[in-house]
Amino acid sequence: MPHALLAAHQTLLDGALSAIATRGYWSPFSEMPSPKVYGETAADDGKRAFESLLNQPFELNQPGDTGQRVAPEQSPYGVALNVSYPVCDHEALVAAAQAAMPAWQAVGAEGRTGICLEMLTRLNRQSFEIAHAVMMTTGQGWMMAFQAGSPHAQDRALEAVAYAWREQSFVPAETTWEKPQGKNPPIVMKKHFEVVGRGVALVIGCGTFPTWNTYPGLFAALATGNAVIVKPHSNAVLPAAITVRTLRAVLAEQGLDPNLVTLCVTEQRSTTQALAMHPAVKSVDFTGGNTFGQWLIANCKQAQVYAELAGVNHIVIDSTNAYKPMLGNLAFTLSLYSAQMCTTSQAILVPAGGIATDQGHKTFDEVCADLGAAIQRFLSKPEVACAVLGAIQSPDTLARIEQANSGAWGKVVLASETLTNPEFPAATVRTPVLLACDEADVAAYQEERFGPVAFVVKCADTAAAIALSEHMVNTHGALTVGVYSTRTDVIDAMTAATWRSKVALSINLTGGVFVNQSAAFSDYHGTGGNPAANASYADSAFVANRFRVVQRRYHVES
Amino acid sequence: MPHALLAAHQTLLDGALSAIATRGYWSPFSEMPSPKVYGETAADDGKRAFESLLNQPFELNQPGDTGQRVAPEQSPYGVALNVSYPVCDHEALVAAAQAAMPAWQAVGAEGRTGICLEMLTRLNRQSFEIAHAVMMTTGQGWMMAFQAGSPHAQDRALEAVAYAWREQSFVPAETTWEKPQGKNPPIVMKKHFEVVGRGVALVIGCGTFPTWNTYPGLFAALATGNAVIVKPHSNAVLPAAITVRTLRAVLAEQGLDPNLVTLCVTEQRSTTQALAMHPAVKSVDFTGGNTFGQWLIANCKQAQVYAELAGVNHIVIDSTNAYKPMLGNLAFTLSLYSAQMCTTSQAILVPAGGIATDQGHKTFDEVCADLGAAIQRFLSKPEVACAVLGAIQSPDTLARIEQANSGAWGKVVLASETLTNPEFPAATVRTPVLLACDEADVAAYQEERFGPVAFVVKCADTAAAIALSEHMVNTHGALTVGVYSTRTDVIDAMTAATWRSKVALSINLTGGVFVNQSAAFSDYHGTGGNPAANASYADSAFVANRFRVVQRRYHVES
Repeated sequence: MPHALLAAHQTLLDGALSAIATRGYWSPFSEMPSPKVYGETAADDGKRAFESLLNQPFELNQPGDTGQRVAPEQSPYGVALNVSYPVCDHEALVAAAQAAMPAWQAVGAEGRTGICLEMLTRLNRQSFEIAHAVMMTTGQGWMMAFQAGSPHAQDRALEAVAYAWREQSFVPAETTWEKPQGKNPPIVMKKHFEVVGRGVALVIGCGTFPTWNTYPGLFAALATGNAVIVKPHSNAVLPAAITVRTLRAVLAEQGLDPNLVTLCVTEQRSTTQALAMHPAVKSVDFTGGNTFGQWLIANCKQAQVYAELAGVNHIVIDSTNAYKPMLGNLAFTLSLYSAQMCTTSQAILVPAGGIATDQGHKTFDEVCADLGAAIQRFLSKPEVACAVLGAIQSPDTLARIEQANSGAWGKVVLASETLTNPEFPAATVRTPVLLACDEADVAAYQEERFGPVAFVVKCADTAAAIALSEHMVNTHGALTVGVYSTRTDVIDAMTAATWRSKVALSINLTGGVFVNQSAAFSDYHGTGGNPAANASYADSAFVANRFRVVQRRYHVES
Repeated sequence: MPHALLAAHQTLLDGALSAIATRGYWSPFSEMPSPKVYGETAADDGKRAFESLLNQPFELNQPGDTGQRVAPEQSPYGVALNVSYPVCDHEALVAAAQAAMPAWQAVGAEGRTGICLEMLTRLNRQSFEIAHAVMMTTGQGWMMAFQAGSPHAQDRALEAVAYAWREQSFVPAETTWEKPQGKNPPIVMKKHFEVVGRGVALVIGCGTFPTWNTYPGLFAALATGNAVIVKPHSNAVLPAAITVRTLRAVLAEQGLDPNLVTLCVTEQRSTTQALAMHPAVKSVDFTGGNTFGQWLIANCKQAQVYAELAGVNHIVIDSTNAYKPMLGNLAFTLSLYSAQMCTTSQAILVPAGGIATDQGHKTFDEVCADLGAAIQRFLSKPEVACAVLGAIQSPDTLARIEQANSGAWGKVVLASETLTNPEFPAATVRTPVLLACDEADVAAYQEERFGPVAFVVKCADTAAAIALSEHMVNTHGALTVGVYSTRTDVIDAMTAATWRSKVALSINLTGGVFVNQSAAFSDYHGTGGNPAANASYADSAFVANRFRVVQRRYHVES
């Protein structure tokens, strides 16, 4: 008899297992916020649920509550949130997590998988509520907040659960080992194999994608038998808090200790560091900047660290037979969520001699100008601009835009402008800056400039651009690279370069897919093979080392 | 069409895949050195092949040959080997390894798997030759050298290849991603997924099991698309050299660059360190002591390190209904290869109040004395003793035996004696030392005393012994622990302790299986979850992170 919740969600699991095996298009969680899918009242209910959380304490009933509360979030939309969270002693959270693990181990892989699937189904029902929380804390536009914050994040979580299930399902619970002894009776042993989680997992979220980048590690760790402490970014606590509360409710309903999943809200970096280095913490999932990421890798010797850090994503343009669609595709990529995505291209490498296109030869300067114009055209309707750009999430990003606008990092092709969002007059809205520079200006374009700052980089020729791409991936890392070319040899050379440097390649994107988008079950997010990330969403390596197998054996009569 | 060598070895692969899924008894490589299996002349041929290698240069035709040759091996059997190996510049080996990788990637997972299986089949045919090399370099007895050195090592290699194949086979080479767009035509993309090895692999062997502990990492790395540099222990080069030469021959036959697999013989620790920290080296497999192992983990930031280090294996004795068979089983375990195994028990934890047995109550002192007598009895026939004990592999082990004999670490229950091996009069043969001490004497028994030095440790009671076991695994690590008890509650408590501390447990071994034996395809060697090893032979985690998936995608017409 499988666990009741596994039986209830078997179709969902089977779909996910099939999807990770074939990697075609599949998504069980609709990305359209449609009443037909989510229910006629879902949009209103979700908005009200979100609003009901504002201006008051968020209750979690966690152990170690110090009585202190913090309300750290500042909305990029300028909306007052005033949600306060309990500060819990991190040692108490670790102790409670450890205490909750043996029962979670005893549920077994089937039970854990079923319960994780139930959690995801519940989160899916909260898609609107969580989307509003994502939008208001991150500054994403509504449609992105809904899609990336809810169904796409749920897809990524389900993907991790499917990988975790597949790997755990390979470990037989027991076996009879019967070794022939010639004419004598065989030696017979009974062996049992127990899947045991490595230990308490710490999942550190980022400020821009508080669910999409948190769910994979959270669910990978949970499904493989570990307790999880979620440490959200201080400016994007609410989406994580709603998630943790739902997970705790599902655990409690199943008669399990809800302290298996807790939220650690702290304004002290030292608390996060103490947690990450705690002897009981055996894995750390992190999305964020290089400085803290490298600190984690260097210092958390007791834990497996799965880190998604910064990189310098880029695109090589050699030639195209779809000049306008290419520019349109790039304009969208550079504008979406004001390029506050770890997958957005920062550098566009163009040969000094220009490029061949279906509209004739274009000089380097023409490419720069045409791309600038394409961005301007794409953002010319204020309602489109506000929906696509969202708002600027952090003061640091704002400062980078100012510096780019000043011309400090290159010739300004298109300056960033301040827009007003009529719906949210206090929102911080900026259009992208486009700069032109030379490949020698490495200090300018070869450092991650998170946010809407892009460079068109003049390279000697296409071969030099491909070589520069490989160098940048190896040196600074990248989650995505792209190439535009009508020539097979160029695409082959770029492909070979990405094999060596280990980065995902998008070729000649001109339609409704963008280099900064990665689809669960099909696109690996990060290869784990270059400095931008040491793991991928999701593959076997993302889950296989989160549990260990402990065996016992004894003689039995043959 | 599958690769010809995959087709040729499909049955072997299918058997291994089935075995890792069910973990029952299975072995394709016969552990009996029988003429019926290996051929009537195999034993003589193998001995002659081994002898023909002695007293001359071993040729490998590797790049970077400096012209310098070293002959570092001293046989524990006192036999002059005088095999000299070329010293190759390690930078040249790395460069050649990198150059060989793209073609190995292009062969694909199927081809790589087929070629690895061919390599193992060839090595199996060399079982006698390699067994002699293992025996003469490590001091193992003949039967162990044959079994552990050849078929069992080949089994472990095959196991790694099977895991590597299974994980790689989950990655589809390509897919068509077709996303519905309501009434509009779907968005269709073609995606390709390339399995790419992480980079050059370094496999550092140990002096006692130069094939059994080397093959898993070597074949896991190779099968997943990496070049491998084997750095053998300076006293056990020959088994690795024969292996590498065979692998290079198979590669050359397949039209591949033989420099995909090379041997790095060096007497400089600094060369090994430089190799391990080389930017192109992306994985390090290591078997050996804690000092260098921890150095590797701390310093090789650019590489995944798979380390099997030292531990303090131990056994809790609570009670038994088979006192004599228990003592016999322990006597064998403590004697086999003079306990120069990373799986041999070092500490036997016995309650101060003694134990209940089928022969009545036995006091602590009686257990000590009876175990000492059982060892003495087991080794009373010189031919048995020499066959089982083999010879002492290193001067350090000899020094530890002397120190134990002096009583420095506890009361001497049974002193080590010097034996003479009539066949090898210059062999260094010693019987085990058995010491008795108190659980408070942690400095004595809680440090790995590699070699035939065992402690019977007096514990307050069984509960204290189990607690001590858990503490030792958590603090010092262990590859194996055992328990003897007739009581279910004791076995359950010990089982729960091993789940928490993550170590394999053998229960009431009294027959033909010993705690220090681990069978490929069934027993996980190490859990990877305690300080004795950060990886296991073999599981998904042992292979899944040795390759990365690099994708590319582009629009196609629907």
